[in-house]
Amino acid sequence: MEKTNSYYILPNNFYPIKKLQNYIHMGVVRNYSKGQSIVLPGELIYKIVYVLSGRLSISFLNEDGRQKLMYYADPHTYADRLFPFDDCYVHVIAEENSTVCFFSKEELLEIFQQDKEVLFDFITNYSSKCGYFMREAKEMVLYNPTVRVLRLLYELCLTQGKSVDNVYQIDIKLSQKAISEITGVHFVTISKIFGLLKKENILYKTTSKITVIDLERLKELINKWMEL
Amino acid sequence: MEKTNSYYILPNNFYPIKKLQNYIHMGVVRNYSKGQSIVLPGELIYKIVYVLSGRLSISFLNEDGRQKLMYYADPHTYADRLFPFDDCYVHVIAEENSTVCFFSKEELLEIFQQDKEVLFDFITNYSSKCGYFMREAKEMVLYNPTVRVLRLLYELCLTQGKSVDNVYQIDIKLSQKAISEITGVHFVTISKIFGLLKKENILYKTTSKITVIDLERLKELINKWMEL
Repeated sequence: MEKTNSYYILPNNFYPIKKLQNYIHMGVVRNYSKGQSIVLPGELIYKIVYVLSGRLSISFLNEDGRQKLMYYADPHTYADRLFPFDDCYVHVIAEENSTVCFFSKEELLEIFQQDKEVLFDFITNYSSKCGYFMREAKEMVLYNPTVRVLRLLYELCLTQGKSVDNVYQIDIKLSQKAISEITGVHFVTISKIFGLLKKENILYKTTSKITVIDLERLKELINKWMEL
Repeated sequence: MEKTNSYYILPNNFYPIKKLQNYIHMGVVRNYSKGQSIVLPGELIYKIVYVLSGRLSISFLNEDGRQKLMYYADPHTYADRLFPFDDCYVHVIAEENSTVCFFSKEELLEIFQQDKEVLFDFITNYSSKCGYFMREAKEMVLYNPTVRVLRLLYELCLTQGKSVDNVYQIDIKLSQKAISEITGVHFVTISKIFGLLKKENILYKTTSKITVIDLERLKELINKWMEL
């Protein structure tokens, strides 16, 4: 396995299919402005929406009006609308000015026939996405809300933290609202957790980064909260 | 789209790749007895485990010893161990006497090159699995435990219920323990919900089937519990 498919803690930047951009002449390229809908809820296109630049959000809407932001499609990844989902509506929105390429099933199969690497990257992307949601479901079943948030921060530190002047820095723009959406934990709880972590001198967050001062005590806090 | 990839409410019987069985001479076939481990936690095989007969369970184990049964691999579906997951250990067990076929990445790519249908079924299977876990994560974020269980029963009735003598019968062996594992709701709560549903003459469950007496009131109960 020449490339590793590491696990995904955040629902974005799934495994990229870089070489698919060499085949955009076989699909349909279009531009969307920030905020524009690319696929409307209920619309069936039987295509993937491959991102060349910008960023898409994919949300699921239930029939009762409730919705959840599921993931972001970043450059070289895609929003999969090949298959209709019956149990909810899917809404794909351009979160930034974006250029995308639509590929149908037939177009994809032709590309896969020509290029095994694109095919395997495509499957790897699916695996990374599926792995993310398996992880999300697992965490929800196994841990209480506070532990879920603390575990997210701990794993972010282990996987993306850089050691700088005796602390770990995680260079990531991740709002409290986004953490709330990802973990399914109420915004007020998230806010309280960050308040506690700062007061205890364990970790603090700014707009563009998270600084972990004491990873050991973050781990201890997880264990303590797991017992509650 | 000749075949529809309907959505999956239960983590089993994902979209089958029937034609892959025509290629088992290219993989490695093995038999396992009920209860035997096929892939041990931490073991890396870089293969898929395609099920010819029997049934496998796929569980995730965290480093703290907690585990969750993620899904079952039924005949013509597979346990994906092509990619290592770093954040937890994966345990694949034969739930029944099972015959499986291991395929490596190289073997799969060769088969896909020969047979587009197998390839598209493989991708459809991934999509069905990913869709299931997306649904599971969504339900967990949007609904409280009781509503999750009621919604599961309601959707099972809509998708698999057969109208018989003015009631709906869902022919399914689904234990309360399994419902607890699937929804992440405590066993005691599950038991209470079924007690209430029976007492209210809305629904009752035996070992091999669920009978929905009053679908309308089941829906009303969901709405009532959503307000709490």
